Amino acid sequence: KALTIGLIPADGIGREVIPAARQVLEALPCDIMPSRLSFVDLDAGFEYFQKHGVALPEKTLEALKDSCDGALFGAVSSPSHKVAGYSSPIVGLRKKMDLYANVRPVISGAAATASGEKRAIDMLIIRENTECLYIKEEEQHEGPNGKYATAKRRISEFASRRAGEMAFSMALQRENMRQQVPLAERTWKARPKVTIVHKSNVLSVTDGLWRETVRSVYTGNSEYSSKIDIEEQLVDSMVYRMFREPEAFDVVVAPNMYGDIISDGAAALVGSLGLVPSANVGDNFVVGEPVHGSAPDIAGKNIANPIAAIRSAAMLLERTGYGSAALAIYRAVDKALESGQIKTPDLGGKATTTKVTEAVCKLL
Amino acid sequence: KALTIGLIPADGIGREVIPAARQVLEALPCDIMPSRLSFVDLDAGFEYFQKHGVALPEKTLEALKDSCDGALFGAVSSPSHKVAGYSSPIVGLRKKMDLYANVRPVISGAAATASGEKRAIDMLIIRENTECLYIKEEEQHEGPNGKYATAKRRISEFASRRAGEMAFSMALQRENMRQQVPLAERTWKARPKVTIVHKSNVLSVTDGLWRETVRSVYTGNSEYSSKIDIEEQLVDSMVYRMFREPEAFDVVVAPNMYGDIISDGAAALVGSLGLVPSANVGDNFVVGEPVHGSAPDIAGKNIANPIAAIRSAAMLLERTGYGSAALAIYRAVDKALESGQIKTPDLGGKATTTKVTEAVCKLL
Ligand SMILES: CC(C)[C@H](C(=O)O)[C@@H](O)C(=O)O
Ligand SMILES: CC(C)[C@H](C(=O)O)[C@@H](O)C(=O)O
Repeated sequence: KALTIGLIPADGIGREVIPAARQVLEALPCDIMPSRLSFVDLDAGFEYFQKHGVALPEKTLEALKDSCDGALFGAVSSPSHKVAGYSSPIVGLRKKMDLYANVRPVISGAAATASGEKRAIDMLIIRENTECLYIKEEEQHEGPNGKYATAKRRISEFASRRAGEMAFSMALQRENMRQQVPLAERTWKARPKVTIVHKSNVLSVTDGLWRETVRSVYTGNSEYSSKIDIEEQLVDSMVYRMFREPEAFDVVVAPNMYGDIISDGAAALVGSLGLVPSANVGDNFVVGEPVHGSAPDIAGKNIANPIAAIRSAAMLLERTGYGSAALAIYRAVDKALESGQIKTPDLGGKATTTKVTEAVCKLL
Repeated sequence: KALTIGLIPADGIGREVIPAARQVLEALPCDIMPSRLSFVDLDAGFEYFQKHGVALPEKTLEALKDSCDGALFGAVSSPSHKVAGYSSPIVGLRKKMDLYANVRPVISGAAATASGEKRAIDMLIIRENTECLYIKEEEQHEGPNGKYATAKRRISEFASRRAGEMAFSMALQRENMRQQVPLAERTWKARPKVTIVHKSNVLSVTDGLWRETVRSVYTGNSEYSSKIDIEEQLVDSMVYRMFREPEAFDVVVAPNMYGDIISDGAAALVGSLGLVPSANVGDNFVVGEPVHGSAPDIAGKNIANPIAAIRSAAMLLERTGYGSAALAIYRAVDKALESGQIKTPDLGGKATTTKVTEAVCKLL
C-alpha cells in the first residue's frame, strides 16, 4: 500500500515550509508509517498566475483527483492591487474539491502567548469552508452617488449541517481521546462543549439559518445532546471573550469569514501563526494547510517557522487513517518546542527553518 | 444657550449606565460647561419591542430630529431566537440619522490588559457605519438541497470616502493635540498613521472599491499624503497583529462588520469592554454609545461599569463644541482609574455602578 500526497507550495514561504513538512514525513520510521509515501509536485499560486495567467491550473486539480490521496498546500500571496482574472487558488481548491470544513486546532501546549505567559488553550475551530462571502459573487454598479459594489453572502442548510455535523462529531472524538488520560491528570472540563458563532442580531436570516441548522444537528442526535454542551456567541463578543478567557473554549464552529478571523486571533494567543495547522476536509479528500500566509517579507531567508506546515502534514495523516504516524509527529513537535531551544524568529529565537525541521525529524 | 441631549437607555445595563452618564454631565461645574444641559428620555430596544411591537419608535426619531442636539444610546438585547418584525434599533438609528462613522478610541491609559500587563495602546478605530452587511437585505430561498439564505453586502464609493475622510482628518487632529505635549514626554511615533482594513484577497470587487476609495482620499489631499503614513491590513491578519503588537496602531479604518469585530477585540486589550466608548457621527448629529452590550447576566445589579457610557458622553460633548468639558470628564475618569481603588467587577474589583459614578463626579 502507498499513500500519495500532492504538494502545492504556491507562494512565498510556502516554498520553504512545504518541503520541510515533506522532509518530516519522509523521516517517519517504517514501524510507525507502514505505507510507502510518494509525492507529486503541483503548481498553483499568485506567482504562477503572473507567469501563466491561471492561479489554480486544471492539471493540478486533475492530478489531485486522479492520483493523490491527499495534499499539502503552502500559502498564497495577495496582489496589492486588483488584478483582472485572478482569483485565490486556495478558495478555488476548497470549492472544487468540496473540502467543506476547515479544521483548525489551536493548542497552547509548549508555546507561549504573546505576553510570554502560558495558558491552557485547547480549541478546535471548525470553519465552514465553501460558502458565506467566499462564494465571490460580486458586482460593480454605477449609482447616482458614484460607484458601488455588492457581494453576496450565502448560507445554506446543507453546508451548515455538514459543518455542524463535523463540529459535534469531532467534539465527541476529542472527548474519547481525553478519556484515555487518567482522571487525576486531566486539566480540562469534564464535558465537551461546542460554541456556535454567528451575528444573528444583525443577519437574522442568513445567520439565523446557520444557527438554527447547527442547533438542529445537536437536538436531532441524542448522543450529541446528551454528551455535549452548546453555547452561542456573537462574533464580536467571541473575539473579545477569546482574548479574555481562551481556556473557556473547546470546539468552536463558525461560518467561513468569521472562522477565518477567529482562527487568526486564536493563533495570536498561542504565540505565533507559525504554529497553527489546519486541514481542509471533505468526504473523500483532505488538504493540510498552515494557517499562516505567504509572508513575503521573510520569504527565501530560511527563517519561516515550519511547525504549522509539519502539523498540517500530521493532520493529513490523521485523516487518511495513519493515526499513530500523526501522533508521532505531534509528539516530536511538542518535544522540540518544549526544549525551548530551537525557535524561529516569530517565537523570539534565531533558528532556521532547516534547524527546526531537523530537530523534529530527530525526535520522531 | 442650552444643549439638549436625548437619552435612550434601551435594554439591560443600558438602563444603569446611561443614568450614570447623565449624572456626570450634570455634575459638570458651570465654568467648564457654560451651557445649560437638558435631557429628553426616549424609548427604544428589544424590551420595548416586546411590549409595543416596534424597536425604534417614530416618536424617538422625531424627538431626536426636532429637539435634540445629540443623544446617548445604552445597549440592546439580542433575541435568542428569530423574532418576526424585530430589527436592531441601533442599526436603524445609525441609518435613519445618517451617522456614517462610528468613532471608537481604544486607549490603555490606566487600564490593565487581560494579562495584567500595561501597554501603550492608543488606537482610534473608525468604523463605516451605514452599509456593508448592515444594510440587512436578506432573502430566504428553497433550493434542491434544502433551504438557503442570502445577504447582500454593499460598499459604495460615497460611504467609503466619508469614512476615509473621517479617518484622515482625525489622524491629523490627534497629531495636533499631541504636538502640545513636550517632545521629551511623547511616547508615540512621530507621524500619524492610518491602517486600512479589508479582505480584498477574497472580496476583490467590494473591498477592492473600499480600499481604492480610501486610498484616493489620501492621495487626493496633499496635507494627508504629506503628513500621514498609510498601510493596509487584511482583516484576519489585523486581528492577529492587533494582539501581537497593539502599540503599532494609530488610526484604523474599516468597513462596518470588520470594524465591529476589531473594536471588540481591541477592547479586550485594554482590560474591559466596560471602558470603551464610541460616537456615532454624522454631519449634523452625534450619538454617544458604549461599545459593550446589554449584559443581561449582570443587569439590574448595580455592578455594570459606567465608564464606557461616561466616556461616550464626553465624546458627545467633544463633537458638539464643548471640548474643555469633554476633557474634564476624560481626566476625571483617568484619575478614577489610576487610583485603582474603585473598580467594577469586570476590572476585578467590587465597586458598584453608583460608587464609580460618584467617584468620577467628585474628580471633575
Ligand atoms: C488566503 C486567504 C484567501 C485565506 C482565507 O481567507 O481563507 C487565508 O486567510 C486562510 O485563512 O486560509
Ligand atoms: C448590537 C449590535 C447590532 C451592534 C453592532 O453590531 O453594530 C453592536 O455590536 C455594536 O458594536 O454597536
